[in-house]
Amino acid sequence: MFNKRTKIKELLAGEPTGQQVTVMGWVRTFRNNQFIALNDGSTLNNLQIVVELGLLDEATLKRITTGAALKITGELIPSLGKGQKMEIKAAVIEVLGDSDSEQYPLQPKKHSLEFLREIAHLRFRTNTFSAIFRIRHALAFAIHRFFNEKGFVYLHTPIITSSDAEGAGEMFQVTTLPLAQLPKSAEGGIDFSQDFFGKSTNLTVSGQLEGELAATALGDIYTFGPTFRAENSNTTRHLAEFWMIEPEMAFYDLQDNMDLAEEFIQYLIRYVMEHNAADLSFLDTRQKEEEKALPQAQRSELGLLDKLQFVLDNRFERITYSEAIEVLLQSPAYKKKKFKYEVKWGIDLQSEHERYLVEKHYKKPVIVTDYPKDIKAFYMRQNDDGKTVAAMDILAPGIGEIVGGSQREERLDKLETRMQEMHVPLKEMQWYLDTRRFGTVPHAGFGLGFERMVLFVTGMSNIRDVIPFARTPKNCEF
Amino acid sequence: MFNKRTKIKELLAGEPTGQQVTVMGWVRTFRNNQFIALNDGSTLNNLQIVVELGLLDEATLKRITTGAALKITGELIPSLGKGQKMEIKAAVIEVLGDSDSEQYPLQPKKHSLEFLREIAHLRFRTNTFSAIFRIRHALAFAIHRFFNEKGFVYLHTPIITSSDAEGAGEMFQVTTLPLAQLPKSAEGGIDFSQDFFGKSTNLTVSGQLEGELAATALGDIYTFGPTFRAENSNTTRHLAEFWMIEPEMAFYDLQDNMDLAEEFIQYLIRYVMEHNAADLSFLDTRQKEEEKALPQAQRSELGLLDKLQFVLDNRFERITYSEAIEVLLQSPAYKKKKFKYEVKWGIDLQSEHERYLVEKHYKKPVIVTDYPKDIKAFYMRQNDDGKTVAAMDILAPGIGEIVGGSQREERLDKLETRMQEMHVPLKEMQWYLDTRRFGTVPHAGFGLGFERMVLFVTGMSNIRDVIPFARTPKNCEF
Repeated sequence: MFNKRTKIKELLAGEPTGQQVTVMGWVRTFRNNQFIALNDGSTLNNLQIVVELGLLDEATLKRITTGAALKITGELIPSLGKGQKMEIKAAVIEVLGDSDSEQYPLQPKKHSLEFLREIAHLRFRTNTFSAIFRIRHALAFAIHRFFNEKGFVYLHTPIITSSDAEGAGEMFQVTTLPLAQLPKSAEGGIDFSQDFFGKSTNLTVSGQLEGELAATALGDIYTFGPTFRAENSNTTRHLAEFWMIEPEMAFYDLQDNMDLAEEFIQYLIRYVMEHNAADLSFLDTRQKEEEKALPQAQRSELGLLDKLQFVLDNRFERITYSEAIEVLLQSPAYKKKKFKYEVKWGIDLQSEHERYLVEKHYKKPVIVTDYPKDIKAFYMRQNDDGKTVAAMDILAPGIGEIVGGSQREERLDKLETRMQEMHVPLKEMQWYLDTRRFGTVPHAGFGLGFERMVLFVTGMSNIRDVIPFARTPKNCEF
Repeated sequence: MFNKRTKIKELLAGEPTGQQVTVMGWVRTFRNNQFIALNDGSTLNNLQIVVELGLLDEATLKRITTGAALKITGELIPSLGKGQKMEIKAAVIEVLGDSDSEQYPLQPKKHSLEFLREIAHLRFRTNTFSAIFRIRHALAFAIHRFFNEKGFVYLHTPIITSSDAEGAGEMFQVTTLPLAQLPKSAEGGIDFSQDFFGKSTNLTVSGQLEGELAATALGDIYTFGPTFRAENSNTTRHLAEFWMIEPEMAFYDLQDNMDLAEEFIQYLIRYVMEHNAADLSFLDTRQKEEEKALPQAQRSELGLLDKLQFVLDNRFERITYSEAIEVLLQSPAYKKKKFKYEVKWGIDLQSEHERYLVEKHYKKPVIVTDYPKDIKAFYMRQNDDGKTVAAMDILAPGIGEIVGGSQREERLDKLETRMQEMHVPLKEMQWYLDTRRFGTVPHAGFGLGFERMVLFVTGMSNIRDVIPFARTPKNCEF
């Protein structure tokens, strides 16, 4: 048994009483041939190791370089130095793995996020990224805990699908056919009957439709899985592969849906503030440092921690789409012709419009409801006005749309008519329609883009920095 | 706000004191125009609704059919009838959704699992499948809770990858190239530079290698995500798309790894026994009923609940591969030539061998360690004997391999040599080798096939019955 170590997080949470402990981790810095700052990934904080004169020979001292892995046994004692409560007085130091400082890409200095993206396999070893990925973990766990406490069932919806009912954009094709020699059908097309699944298949863009099948039996369910968009969008907000959470609830209307989504987001933020204080505080400081270089106007109005606290302390603003259009039309920005895109009832809100509403006008998260039916999906419940559907999008400061949801159309006749109007193939969707055919119920749900939530909570600005290994156009490394 | 209901699970856990409650759910049965058995998916147990004479007109009574959705308000009172502690004396009954009993595929009778697989979109509405999917949820939550309690970081490793380093079998290709008109390169091959990622890409078979990158910085991590095998295996144990949990731990050797895996499996079983007693008990009875039709010899030695308790009460047997071969060679089965496949040192253990060890010889889960290096992956740590590697597989009764893991080769020179011997491309794997180049540490990990674990815990026999929508050769419905 090798792993008789104590994690640094645990040690730092306790008291130094001279007890003998063993720690293992990686050297962050080594000062004056005497003070090792050791990090083991369990916390942002390093543990100071004191190497007394004569403990190690010259050759071993030289091997204690940034990035080297050490196993250290010694007494945990109160530290006399500044900046730490405790330190280990090393009795035995074993070098587990060397790190040639000439070659090691991570030097004890500031590296750009761009550079670290290139060496994503090593960036976990930095303060910034270890904080981000511990927060990402905490958010994921909080998501499961939230739904579990409420009696939701976690549902794994399929990744490979044969339907494109959502019509949510371009999809990745999945095939085992030999591309160099594709079998042809009698009609001259590709003979997908020879493909693995006997038909053409894609990567899923959403688990919602399958989620509805389970919700109309188990009551409340949620998905949390990868989804895909083959869109050629090289922005700081888009990934080709990202994780999404999609709860779906039987017996919910639009208001129930909004209430749940708001409670959910606040729960997640509260959880991370309680469990990841050190990481958040580090990122809060980091953001302030980064923004020092920017002109005042481009700096965040609130620091990261203040922003999160603000979201906890304030109810989200709830407005209808029609009200949103009215606000935009009355805005100074509109009157001064500062919007690039047209504003009128019927448009899909553009990023500049969403940002105006959230960041300038309401200055907090906004839930926009009742969108025109023509810019929304076929499954959204039609309102009595004949023009709008019971949709709701949550817009967050600095991020834009973070949640998209709706009450679903539970009335079979209205759903079928809408599907016909929108050219959704009814025949292939009989399984979906069965939920309306047999014991249909009012139900609703929403999707939360996980990486956008991580962006929001970490205050990072590029979505590639909050997922371990980003997949974007022309980029599929590691 | 529509959803002012109480879940049946909650009601049944409390006391009936005549309080007014609202429930919503689906009719399972309606007896004598008087007793509705209502299920809302929150629990296996139905709630009895008493419809007093005269409450509903004839037309409404006729709409209360199996599968119909109801909203019921009334007093929750102690039940005088047998079989239930409480019931609702209905004051208002609203039919939310009808279910035409002529058309509804789920009749109040026993349906075969094969039939229910065909209507997987409706099988959530049966006792068996609602129990299975609640248990699946509980297992998933227990997995996250186990690792979170131990300070592991949940890592989302990529689904789309450009490497096939694992060599774990045939892979699904992912592309956005137009299949009908594939672009050609100057050499006449397919021009993948025009593909979405600018290169040929596949669906992942494992997140382990990426997991190692994070573990050698954050310490302990785990993945829990979908993985894929494009193998044409039409068995009761294989899926083309399945979920896998892959923990990876820095500073672990093989023994640490085994200890963790054993503790993990026992934790999961204990969690489900504590949280899903009704579901497990139903499946226990179900299995006994099913097996009544079988000859004595084919029945399970232990019932489902007894089997799970047995796994909790007994340490897993730990034997080396060499010992396993010896046991097989000494077995009556071998001497009577009952094995179809050859038994000698160096073979990959076949299912019949694993079953003999687990079900006949040791009669409990067995961890087999130190396999011949030639039948294992390049990254496994080489033992000093020069012949074996520090691998470990956990074999479970009735399932076979449920966990596969190893200590990883942390020594750069030995790893590179082994990769060369096994024709793993070193150049493309520099990112992986960097973990050995800079601060390498002993580390280990394993993979647990989630569906196999669900199979084990539910006692089901076909893996297609423990995942919501199975993907198997020629089968990609819903």
